[in-house]
Amino acid sequence: MRALIIDRPGVMALREVPVPDADECLIRVLAAGICGTDLELLRGYAEFCGIPGHEFVGVVERAPARAASWVGRRVVGEINVGCGACRWCELGIKEHCEHRSVVGIRGRSGAFAEFLTLPPENLHSVPDSMDDTRAVFVEPVAAACRILEQVEIDASTHTAIVGDGRMALVTAQVLRTTGATITIAGKHEAKLAVAGGMGFDVLRGSEIAARAKSFDLVVDVTGKPEGFQTALALARPRGTVVLKSTFHGDLAWTPWPVIVDEITLIGSRCGPFAPAIALLAAKRIDVAPLAAAVHPLEGFEAAFDAARRELKVLFRIA
Amino acid sequence: MRALIIDRPGVMALREVPVPDADECLIRVLAAGICGTDLELLRGYAEFCGIPGHEFVGVVERAPARAASWVGRRVVGEINVGCGACRWCELGIKEHCEHRSVVGIRGRSGAFAEFLTLPPENLHSVPDSMDDTRAVFVEPVAAACRILEQVEIDASTHTAIVGDGRMALVTAQVLRTTGATITIAGKHEAKLAVAGGMGFDVLRGSEIAARAKSFDLVVDVTGKPEGFQTALALARPRGTVVLKSTFHGDLAWTPWPVIVDEITLIGSRCGPFAPAIALLAAKRIDVAPLAAAVHPLEGFEAAFDAARRELKVLFRIA
Repeated sequence: MRALIIDRPGVMALREVPVPDADECLIRVLAAGICGTDLELLRGYAEFCGIPGHEFVGVVERAPARAASWVGRRVVGEINVGCGACRWCELGIKEHCEHRSVVGIRGRSGAFAEFLTLPPENLHSVPDSMDDTRAVFVEPVAAACRILEQVEIDASTHTAIVGDGRMALVTAQVLRTTGATITIAGKHEAKLAVAGGMGFDVLRGSEIAARAKSFDLVVDVTGKPEGFQTALALARPRGTVVLKSTFHGDLAWTPWPVIVDEITLIGSRCGPFAPAIALLAAKRIDVAPLAAAVHPLEGFEAAFDAARRELKVLFRIA
Repeated sequence: MRALIIDRPGVMALREVPVPDADECLIRVLAAGICGTDLELLRGYAEFCGIPGHEFVGVVERAPARAASWVGRRVVGEINVGCGACRWCELGIKEHCEHRSVVGIRGRSGAFAEFLTLPPENLHSVPDSMDDTRAVFVEPVAAACRILEQVEIDASTHTAIVGDGRMALVTAQVLRTTGATITIAGKHEAKLAVAGGMGFDVLRGSEIAARAKSFDLVVDVTGKPEGFQTALALARPRGTVVLKSTFHGDLAWTPWPVIVDEITLIGSRCGPFAPAIALLAAKRIDVAPLAAAVHPLEGFEAAFDAARRELKVLFRIA
């Protein structure tokens, strides 16, 4: 099969490799999305080598006997695979299993390939009414839904999202389903125009200072040190800052204002697929303005290049 | 009256100054404790100039007519004084009033003096059964009680305190009242011996690695970058790290493990006096092993020097 392979930081190629042969479900990938994490992995984050890609939709082609009913179904997949034996796996929280693999991120091949495998426990059926592009958004929408499990948010929660990229616009839409008023702080005019078109208030760099310490909840999805600083600046005393995007590298930070203002910082990672599928199926998340371009696997250089500037870039694989 | 005055970073002197004359209660200070924050203020933290000291017990000598019943009573005092008009003051949370003054820390004279003033709303009577030394611990015990308002903790919560100083031993005792098992991670043998004598498990530097990612709740009371790093190392995935001591200066930090492990960081400052007085009155907090030395105001150099090495050092003022 054809697959994109990261050989070492900065070096990726499209190559012919064997179809995977694990005792798991074999999934033919239909489409896959490029995420900021993929761009970071290519830069060397997590020292990942292998096939990246963890946002996908596919069709199950083969399954172990115990999971034969999955064959032929169109699916999305949770990306963490646990050991099945530790206390985290017993609690059903495989994303914190110490021995986990993670699709396209850690010890497991990803979706920028014609096939990948996953245990049947990780699969979710996609409703027929949901097209492939929308289905590719299940994983990032689930990650945004994780925030709803971690913080209290309702119509009275003044909320800011720091960042105006694809994950910011996904997160903003998910948090808006609670009735909360959402403001997006960004610096890319084209992306802020998309945010404005979706009905969000927008905040540019020069307007940050006037809104300092005024938000109950701030979500940093920039994955950049300056985003973290902006998020802290926007949070009110006793407010909450959610760190949604991983950083590659160090951060210099003056912690005393966090202590004096009693800020809560919460790291947030993968989230639940069921509510994400429900939100997308109900069209409560608008993906059309986010899907910027579709490329074949052979166009990976142009695709990754576009993903550095544009909103969501997808591979159409089958 | 005689008062200790910080003139500029590193420079403190005992001087004769006028007795304060505000439309507040005038309190004759009986005893006051030296806190890590006082040592930081002398080093330049918060650019404070004036009379430091915010842990005290005293007797009300004079009061405005509306508060005449306070005269003659032995009191401790909440240290934040709000503007009385903002949304925080309306909520009764004067510690986050933007225009607040703070006894001996921000825009208000402190307790290392023969007198200080406070509004009657800030005062709490001290039970006759509680001696002055014990009463001086009300403010730090209240600060530890704040953690009980911020996190869920019960007998099943594996808890670590990073730091073995006075505030660590106060915090450990307060958290133990919930039934939680408390481990104290420190590096000062004499202080760890006190911790052991109080019945706490102790953890030395070389033992930290073996307990990595094993605690549900970790409280950093070191106020030092290395304490913060140790606290993060000890917290389990989805665990909570409370930052109890302010840092002076920057911190270099690699935030991605906090995101991957979904750690919650919570800044924690001043706390409620009523439960602190109740815990101390009921002798649920042992202060005798913490009170290291008592000095007169004239002995301030020896007192501050001792406070850098020893547990709680007190001034006996009247």
